[in-house]
Amino acid sequence: MRNFKITIQYDGTDYHGWQIQPNGRTIQGELTRAVSLLEHRPVTIYGAGRTDAGVHAEGQTANFFLDRDVDCRVFRDAINANLDRDIRIVRVETASEDFNARNSATGKVYRYRIWTGDVVSPFARRYVSHHRGRLDVDSMRKGAAHLIGTHDFTAFTVLDSDVKDNTRSLSTLQIEETANEISIIAIADGFLRYMVRTIAGTLIDVGRGKRTCASVSTALESRERANAGPTAPACGLTLVRVDY
Amino acid sequence: MRNFKITIQYDGTDYHGWQIQPNGRTIQGELTRAVSLLEHRPVTIYGAGRTDAGVHAEGQTANFFLDRDVDCRVFRDAINANLDRDIRIVRVETASEDFNARNSATGKVYRYRIWTGDVVSPFARRYVSHHRGRLDVDSMRKGAAHLIGTHDFTAFTVLDSDVKDNTRSLSTLQIEETANEISIIAIADGFLRYMVRTIAGTLIDVGRGKRTCASVSTALESRERANAGPTAPACGLTLVRVDY
Repeated sequence: MRNFKITIQYDGTDYHGWQIQPNGRTIQGELTRAVSLLEHRPVTIYGAGRTDAGVHAEGQTANFFLDRDVDCRVFRDAINANLDRDIRIVRVETASEDFNARNSATGKVYRYRIWTGDVVSPFARRYVSHHRGRLDVDSMRKGAAHLIGTHDFTAFTVLDSDVKDNTRSLSTLQIEETANEISIIAIADGFLRYMVRTIAGTLIDVGRGKRTCASVSTALESRERANAGPTAPACGLTLVRVDY
Repeated sequence: MRNFKITIQYDGTDYHGWQIQPNGRTIQGELTRAVSLLEHRPVTIYGAGRTDAGVHAEGQTANFFLDRDVDCRVFRDAINANLDRDIRIVRVETASEDFNARNSATGKVYRYRIWTGDVVSPFARRYVSHHRGRLDVDSMRKGAAHLIGTHDFTAFTVLDSDVKDNTRSLSTLQIEETANEISIIAIADGFLRYMVRTIAGTLIDVGRGKRTCASVSTALESRERANAGPTAPACGLTLVRVDY
C-alpha cells in the first residue's frame, strides 16, 4: 500500500463541515466519494482535523492509502474533476507509510476574520463575520496576551467534549487590523473544538468594551465555559495551514 | 425632487446582468424593487452602464430621484436590508439635479482576471476565468500597446451593436502578473459592449502564442469583429470604478 498526503482548499459555506455523514454534503464525504470512484473501491480519507459546518480551509490536509502507484499531478486533477469547484485538492504527494494527517501534525494555523466596516463587501461576505462598529484592538491584544502559552483551555471549548486533556500550547494569537477588517491569527500545537471561535467571541466582547482584558485570564483559569464569551460564527473561520 | 448618487458592489455570478428584465434577477431590477419598496412608488434607477450577466462590480454607480430628503447612511442601510448579500450599496450621496450616472461619467476602470495556476482557488473561483498554462506576458503587453489611444474599436465589440460611433479613448491597458494570476486593467472614457472581454480574449490568444502582437493592430485597423479574438468569459470581469 502507498500512503498519499493531500492538501485541500474549500469554501465551507455550503458544506456540513469536514466529517462524513450519512446525510448532508461534507468535505470528507465528497473526497471519499471522489477518490473511491477513481479506485473502484471504498477508500478511507484520514483528515488532520474536523472543521465545523461553514468553516473554510486554505490548507487542510488528509491522507489515504492506495494499492497502486499514481502520478500525483494527474491523480490530483482526476480527483478535482469529480469535485465541485468550492473544494479543490491543491497538492497530492507521497508520504511515508507511518504518516497520519492527524497524529503526525505538529501544529495548526487558523485565521478568524471580523468585518468591522458598515457594509460587508459582497466579495468577502462568505469568509467574514460582521461586527459593525469600532472594536478596541489594543484591548483585544491585551486580552489575547493572557491566552498565549500552555494552558488548560476547558473554558474555551464545548461543554460536552470527550477530549480528556484540554491542555494546548497557543504560541501565537495575533490581531491584525485593516480599514474594514480585523483578523485574529491563532497558532497552536492543536485546537479544541470551537476553541478559535470561542477565543474570537471573547476577544470581540473585549473589543466592544463588554468585558475587561483581565476577565479573559479569569475565564481561562476558571476552566468554566460559562466564563468565556460567545462562540463567534463559523463563517469567519479559516484553517490556514497544518504543520508537520 | 432630490437627486441621489449611489455606489454599488456586486458579485454578479447569480445575476442576469445589470439591466432590468421582466424575468430573471438583475442588479437594476433588485435595486428598483428595494428603493421602490421604501418609497411606496416605482422609482427609476439610472445606471452608469450595463454590465453583462456574470460580470461583477466593485464600484458601479447609479442615480435616482426622490421627492423627499433622506439621511444618506440610514437610507443606504434601509436599501441594503432589502437586498441579498451579494449586492450592496456602499454609499448614497446627494447629487446636483443635472447629475446623470451615465452621461456625467468621464471614464471607467475595468479589471479582467485570468487564473493561470493549475488549480483555481475556491476563494477566487467566482471572479476569475481559468487559463491553465503559461501565458507570455511580455507579448500580451506588446499586443496591448497597439490598443492604447483613441481608436475605432468596432473589431472589439458585438456585431449587431446599435451604437453609431465606436470611437473610444483607451488611456490604460496594463497587465499585472502574480504567481497564479494575470490581471488586465483597462481605463477608457467609455467602453463598447463586450469590449474588455474581447480585448482579454485577444490578448490571451497572444499570450498563448496563437496569434502575433502585430495581429492585434491589424484587427483594430480592419474594424472587423472576425479579426479579433474570442470574447473571454464574463466571470473574469469586474467594473472597478466609474469616474466623474
